[in-house]
Amino acid sequence: MPNDPAVLDAADPLAPYRDRFLPAADVVAYLDGNSLGRPPVATAEALDEFVRQEWGGRLIRGWTDDAIPGTGGPWTNWPERIGDRLAEVALGAAPGQTIVADSTTVLLYKLARAAVDHQLLTGRRTIVVDTADFPTDRYVLEGIAAERGATLRWIETDPAAGLTADQVAGAVDGGTALVAASHVAYRSGWLADAAAITAAAHDAGALMLWDLSHSAGSVEVALDDWGADLAVGCGYKYLNGGPGAPAFGYVRAAAQAVLRQPVQGWMGRRDPFTMGPGYDPADGIRAFVSGTPPILAMVPLRCALDELADAGIAAVRAKSMALTAYALELVDEWLVPLGAEVVSPRDPARRGGHVTIRHPAARAALDELWTRGVIPDYREPTSLRLGFAPLSTSFTEVHDGLVAVRDVLAAMH
Amino acid sequence: MPNDPAVLDAADPLAPYRDRFLPAADVVAYLDGNSLGRPPVATAEALDEFVRQEWGGRLIRGWTDDAIPGTGGPWTNWPERIGDRLAEVALGAAPGQTIVADSTTVLLYKLARAAVDHQLLTGRRTIVVDTADFPTDRYVLEGIAAERGATLRWIETDPAAGLTADQVAGAVDGGTALVAASHVAYRSGWLADAAAITAAAHDAGALMLWDLSHSAGSVEVALDDWGADLAVGCGYKYLNGGPGAPAFGYVRAAAQAVLRQPVQGWMGRRDPFTMGPGYDPADGIRAFVSGTPPILAMVPLRCALDELADAGIAAVRAKSMALTAYALELVDEWLVPLGAEVVSPRDPARRGGHVTIRHPAARAALDELWTRGVIPDYREPTSLRLGFAPLSTSFTEVHDGLVAVRDVLAAMH
Repeated sequence: MPNDPAVLDAADPLAPYRDRFLPAADVVAYLDGNSLGRPPVATAEALDEFVRQEWGGRLIRGWTDDAIPGTGGPWTNWPERIGDRLAEVALGAAPGQTIVADSTTVLLYKLARAAVDHQLLTGRRTIVVDTADFPTDRYVLEGIAAERGATLRWIETDPAAGLTADQVAGAVDGGTALVAASHVAYRSGWLADAAAITAAAHDAGALMLWDLSHSAGSVEVALDDWGADLAVGCGYKYLNGGPGAPAFGYVRAAAQAVLRQPVQGWMGRRDPFTMGPGYDPADGIRAFVSGTPPILAMVPLRCALDELADAGIAAVRAKSMALTAYALELVDEWLVPLGAEVVSPRDPARRGGHVTIRHPAARAALDELWTRGVIPDYREPTSLRLGFAPLSTSFTEVHDGLVAVRDVLAAMH
Repeated sequence: MPNDPAVLDAADPLAPYRDRFLPAADVVAYLDGNSLGRPPVATAEALDEFVRQEWGGRLIRGWTDDAIPGTGGPWTNWPERIGDRLAEVALGAAPGQTIVADSTTVLLYKLARAAVDHQLLTGRRTIVVDTADFPTDRYVLEGIAAERGATLRWIETDPAAGLTADQVAGAVDGGTALVAASHVAYRSGWLADAAAITAAAHDAGALMLWDLSHSAGSVEVALDDWGADLAVGCGYKYLNGGPGAPAFGYVRAAAQAVLRQPVQGWMGRRDPFTMGPGYDPADGIRAFVSGTPPILAMVPLRCALDELADAGIAAVRAKSMALTAYALELVDEWLVPLGAEVVSPRDPARRGGHVTIRHPAARAALDELWTRGVIPDYREPTSLRLGFAPLSTSFTEVHDGLVAVRDVLAAMH
C-alpha cells in the first residue's frame, strides 16, 4: 500500500505555503510548476502597487530616487539588487556576481560568447556540451561555435540519467574553451554533480557555465563553492516570476574583469548618463547588463523570492525529494504495471524536482488529463514529465494527479 | 501675450484621454513622458486579471491554448500578435514584420548583426551612424564593428538639429553595409526625413535601420512606405509599457529569409517543441525571436496600444505639434529673456515630440523643479528636455510647468 497523502501533508512543515499561491479553479493537480510556477498571492497586489505608486507615482524619478522603504530602491540598481537577493536565497553566491536581465537565451549567448571569445585568445576553441542539454543551450552554443570558428564536442548522455564528471573529464583537453551543462536535466530530472564536473572542466583549463533553469529554487545550488565561472537560469519555473519572466546570470567575481560580453549597451557602461562617446564597461557584474532593465517584470520575482527565503532552500529541497519519492512510489505501484517506464534517477541525491515516465500512449493521455484538470507536461515523443514545485504542491495533489494518470492509462490499455 | 492654455485644452479633441492615465499625487507637470510614459488606468486592472486568470488560472496551458476571447490568444504568438498590432497602430507596417521582444539594445544588436553579417559576404564593411545618435546605438554598433572587422563612419550633426539625407548621401558608398539612425533625435528632438535618408542609403546599396524609440506613438511612422529594412524601438516611452518594457523590432518581409540574427534560441526555431538537434530558423519574422517571450511584461503595452489605436496616430501627431508649438511660444516669451537657448527645430515638420533648451543653470534648476513637482528631463551638460506625451499631457500642464521653469530660472538669475 502506498503512503497516505493526508498523513504526508500533515507532517509537511511547508504545507502552509501552498495557500500563498493563487488557486486555479479547474485544476485538480498542477504537475508542471517546473515549466511555469504558480503566482504567489502577493504578486497581483505587488503589481498593482507598483503600477500605481512606483511607475505611476514616481514616474521617471523611480530610476534615480533614493530608496523609499519597501520599494527596492532606485530601479537602476534592480538588476544587481534582485540578483544579490536571488544569489543569497537560492544560488549560494556572494553579492556582486548576479544580475536579473534579458531572457535565459540572451544571457546564455552573452556569457558563453564572453567565455569563448576570451579562450580563443589562447587558442582554446572547443565547447563541450551534452546531446540531452536543453534545446536553446544547444542552439545558442552551435551559433556561437559557427560564428567564432569554434567546435562543439558532444557528449552522449543516458536518456534516463545525465552528464557525469567522468564523461566531462574524458571530453576536455588543452583545447577546451568552455563546458556548458544543465544542473538538472530538463528531460530526465538528472541532478548533475556540479562540483565534480566544474573541477573536471577546470582541470583542463576550461571555463564552466551552468544552466540552473531546472534547479534554482528547487535544489541546493552552491555556485561559489563549486567554483563555477558562469551561470544562467530562468525566472519562471521554480522562481515563479510569471510567463517570460526575466532571467538571471552569474559571473564569478574574479572573472568579471577578464570576460567581456558582446552586447555593449548603455546600461552596462560606466557612467551611462554622461552619454559620452565610446563604450567603457562598468565595474563588476554591471558590465553584463545591456539594455534598460525589465523593472516591472521583476516585481513578481521579488514576491516569489520572499516566499523562498522564508521557507529556506534546504527545507524546499527536503520536500522536493519527498515529493518525487512519493511520486515514484505511486508510479511503481500503479503505472509500471500499465506499461510505464521511469526515465528519472532512482537515487534521490541524483534527482531534481521532476520525474519523467515513458508510455506509448503519453501524447493521447496528456490531452485527456488536461480535460480532467490534471496538468503534467509532455515531451516528444512519448514522455510525461511530472514536476513538483515544492512550495505550491501537496502530497494529496501528487496522489490525485497520479490517480488520474493511472485511470487514463488504464482506460487506454 | 501667450495663448490661454484653458482655451487650448477646451479645443483639444484628445483632452478626454488625459483621464485615461493614472495620476501622480505630487506632480504638477510631467514633462518626461518621452523618457517614461505614464500608466494607462487600464494597466493595473489588466495586470491583476492577467495574474489571476491567465497566469494563475491557465498556468502552462496559456502557452498553447486556443484563443480565449479577450486574452490575446496563446502566449506563444504574442511577439508577433502584439507586434502586428503595434505595426498597424503606430509603425505603418503590414503584418508579419514586427515582434515585441528583448530590450531595444539586444534587438538592435541582433538586427544590426544580421545586417552587417549579410553585407560582409559581399565585402561591404562600413557602418554609418551620427555622433548625436543615442548612446546605446553608438555603443552597440561600435561593438559589432570591432567584433566583425567592420568600420564606423561617423557623421557630425548639428546639435540643435540632426541628420539629413544629404549628409547620408555624402557618407555612403559601395562599401557601406548599414546606415543606422534615430527617427527623432533624443537630444534635439530633430525629426529626420526617414524616406529620403532610407533612399540615400539604398542608392548606395546599404541597408537602413531606424531607431524609433523617440518617435513611435508620437509621430507618424511609415516603415513600409519608407522602404526601411530594419527598425527597433522601445516600449516605455510614448508606448507607455512601463519601466523596462519589452522592445520591438521590424524586419522587412523581403529581407527576412536573407538576414540571420546571431542569438539562435529555441523560440526562433522551426517547431521548437520537437526540441530536436540543430537550429533551423522559423519562417518569417519569428526567426528574430530568441528566448521565451516576456508575456507578463507585454500586458501594459497592450493597454497602451488600445488607447493609441482609439485616438489615432494622426490626431496624436497633430496634438504633439500643437503642444511643442505652445511650449516654444512660452519658452520664447519667458525663458529666452532669462538666458535660455532653444536647441530644437523651429520647423514643426522637422520636430518630434519634445523640445530641448540650454541654460547654464539647468542642472540646479532640475533639482528645484523636481521638488516643486515639475518633472522635465536633464541631459548633460546644460540641457533641460521638455517632453510632451500627447495623450496624457494638457496645455495647462505645459503652461504650469513652464511657469515653474521660469520662476526657478528667474530666482537663479
